[in-house]
Amino acid sequence: MSQRTKFLLDESRMPTHWYNIAADLPVPLPAVLHPGTLQPVGPDDLAPLFPMELIRQEVSTEREIEIPEPVREVFRLWRPSPLFRAHRLEKMLGTPAKIYYKYEGVSPAGSHKPNTAIPQAWYNAQAGTRKLTTETGAGQWGTSLSFAGSLFGIEVQVFQVRVSYDQKPYRRAVMETYGATCVPSPSNLTNSGRAILARDPNHPGSLGIAISEAVEIAATNDDTKYALGSVLNHVLLHQTITGLEAIEQMQMAGDDPDVIVGCTGGGSNFAGIATPFLGLQLRGGRKRRFVAVEPAACPSLTRGRYAYDFGDTAHLTPLTKMHTLGSTFTPPGFQSGGLRYHGMAPLVSHLKELGLIEATAYHQTACFEAGVMFARAEGIVPAPEANHAVKGAIVEALRCKAEGRSETILFNLCGHGHFDMASYSSYMAGKLVDQPYDEAELAMALSGLPSVPA
Amino acid sequence: MSQRTKFLLDESRMPTHWYNIAADLPVPLPAVLHPGTLQPVGPDDLAPLFPMELIRQEVSTEREIEIPEPVREVFRLWRPSPLFRAHRLEKMLGTPAKIYYKYEGVSPAGSHKPNTAIPQAWYNAQAGTRKLTTETGAGQWGTSLSFAGSLFGIEVQVFQVRVSYDQKPYRRAVMETYGATCVPSPSNLTNSGRAILARDPNHPGSLGIAISEAVEIAATNDDTKYALGSVLNHVLLHQTITGLEAIEQMQMAGDDPDVIVGCTGGGSNFAGIATPFLGLQLRGGRKRRFVAVEPAACPSLTRGRYAYDFGDTAHLTPLTKMHTLGSTFTPPGFQSGGLRYHGMAPLVSHLKELGLIEATAYHQTACFEAGVMFARAEGIVPAPEANHAVKGAIVEALRCKAEGRSETILFNLCGHGHFDMASYSSYMAGKLVDQPYDEAELAMALSGLPSVPA
Repeated sequence: MSQRTKFLLDESRMPTHWYNIAADLPVPLPAVLHPGTLQPVGPDDLAPLFPMELIRQEVSTEREIEIPEPVREVFRLWRPSPLFRAHRLEKMLGTPAKIYYKYEGVSPAGSHKPNTAIPQAWYNAQAGTRKLTTETGAGQWGTSLSFAGSLFGIEVQVFQVRVSYDQKPYRRAVMETYGATCVPSPSNLTNSGRAILARDPNHPGSLGIAISEAVEIAATNDDTKYALGSVLNHVLLHQTITGLEAIEQMQMAGDDPDVIVGCTGGGSNFAGIATPFLGLQLRGGRKRRFVAVEPAACPSLTRGRYAYDFGDTAHLTPLTKMHTLGSTFTPPGFQSGGLRYHGMAPLVSHLKELGLIEATAYHQTACFEAGVMFARAEGIVPAPEANHAVKGAIVEALRCKAEGRSETILFNLCGHGHFDMASYSSYMAGKLVDQPYDEAELAMALSGLPSVPA
Repeated sequence: MSQRTKFLLDESRMPTHWYNIAADLPVPLPAVLHPGTLQPVGPDDLAPLFPMELIRQEVSTEREIEIPEPVREVFRLWRPSPLFRAHRLEKMLGTPAKIYYKYEGVSPAGSHKPNTAIPQAWYNAQAGTRKLTTETGAGQWGTSLSFAGSLFGIEVQVFQVRVSYDQKPYRRAVMETYGATCVPSPSNLTNSGRAILARDPNHPGSLGIAISEAVEIAATNDDTKYALGSVLNHVLLHQTITGLEAIEQMQMAGDDPDVIVGCTGGGSNFAGIATPFLGLQLRGGRKRRFVAVEPAACPSLTRGRYAYDFGDTAHLTPLTKMHTLGSTFTPPGFQSGGLRYHGMAPLVSHLKELGLIEATAYHQTACFEAGVMFARAEGIVPAPEANHAVKGAIVEALRCKAEGRSETILFNLCGHGHFDMASYSSYMAGKLVDQPYDEAELAMALSGLPSVPA
């Protein structure tokens, strides 16, 4: 009865450095290429978009990179985040497994995204950036960057995928409360947007298009830079604070995870919880399993090709080697907007190719079923994206039950679902269906991948 | 730069007992009267509605009442809740005052309401109750009782004020996710509801009507009891865990509040933060100021009459002495649904009459302005109800600035606004106006108060 439920670190024990797995990789990451020359990009190629310190982090192989004190000062508003033992869920499942979850929904924006929004805004403020542009789908990232901008006096302009902009006016209200402006994408503010609207004035938008618009504004305005919420190495680096805290909290709990689970869209929350533990292993520590859970309707890691591709639809970005469904692939309109991206973080893709992590995919109704079970057991209503991690953890716990093994499972509950209750409404009303992607469209998108000599 | 931002108690230091201010009152509370006989009600009069343990707590004068261990076990999912120093807000205001806030939005339901929903559901489960009925306006309370019911296997039926039911489908989705059923009130499930629908099929509903419906179902079904989310003594008792934790956390901070601020609708979150500190004073400790902040559109404490009145519209409840606008008073449709109640907790009313607390009222646009300022400084978007407390704290901080005094201000941030972003949308778009109540209607409602000989 008096088992401990949550493990809190005092703020004096919040990590002072991020962990950079590039220092411990057995094989380095493939180079990022300029799409015109197909030569590796240099810092100057990226300078129109990012401040130099973030470019430095993007290519750094230092193992530890210091978190600036003003960034830590903001983090103390909610960090260290709690780690919970899911006693009630274990009981509901009747599993001998021990289930722990790291909860990132305690941030003001409700997800793990401020872990990188805050440092990105701060480095930009230091570099004299006046304005940041970005894209957002469901809105977790746009909300987080808006919050970060408000703290450091940076104007934030968010291009929100039009279908989400129309469906989720409350997300927009949060961004506006933080002082940001929010534009439906495609918009008539950019060449990329105008070109698409000329072909289809009612285009619903996509993350790839919104990225093109945000990048275009940043590239063509001196005082404006661009911020991305996932995929890039520096973003994944910033998310390692989650895993670093979890290592200490699992020690507090007197336990040690055998399996670590996270959901993957761009890959940052998974990398954040996984790579600090994986780093221990790469430096001679014990072996663990790392399971990336993705939506079956947008399965880049499990069904995509490992190849060089663009990060956006208008092909304004450099080429990165990653698991991709093709930059022209349009995933079905399932409910986890944060996971509807054609590519996977190059680092996560690389780890998969090296056999250091596993990947699996589930359809949305199975994930919502897991999320409702979790809510009734643990109280927290997870974001639809996070439901993929909940589902992955439950599958592992039921495997332990079948095998009679008392393994320890840790998953990243990356955000709450307070702004996603329309999706839960649809699920509860039996209106959600699983939407397989179009195999022919995937084949077409993959056939259009840029040709890069090996 | 390295000033502490938040003060967390280890879960081993969570209070084991609630504090009952009835033990320390200089004058006892006036009796609760049976509306027919005008004689004090006894336990048997209340037994159809509440389990005996809650009735015992309602009239207890014991100073400390133990929190059952299974209740504490659930509380550990989020309690002790954090106490924050609002460094950034202080800087934004340029005040020499120190501002602290206790944050109850970390509960799974997003507010302070689970503090009483959990014990109410547990005592009912112990007493063999199969089903609980209740009312809800904005939905904070209905959500909390739904969550509590799911944990202890009790069916929960929520009568939601129809205008909120229609305007806030996402709140309903949360209740349904926890397994509860939600009925728009007035409904055709009760005599009270049918009577109102017969007069007006499109009646928007009110808290007073929803209470009548929930009470009627409980009173006429043996296995069904009723749960109220504020006003009653046992509800205020359960909320004292907030103030008890805050006393310890202010000690951790090495500080001591001069002014304690809370918003008041029914009065429970204010009583929860205030009465443990007030108890110290009543037992010979230092004097502090306690400021209750209510909506100017529904100002029971500042403009109501201190008199015996009914708690509901259909007059099914006992008579309690309280500050009331009259049980037939219909407040304007402002955005803080949780504060739209005609009466005030008898205990809070009594403290006001004794001169132990102060009360003040603000209109909603001033409160939203305060809430947006708070969000941009501290990150958390407060519930519209909580914005009243934010406004009250800012007024005190600006007074300190004007007077050059470095007082310490503590307020209860009783919930987040994630389910209230439509209200923020309206405010940001300049569409919110301040709605004074109708003076003639107030006079009429007060003239209809029941006649009770002194």
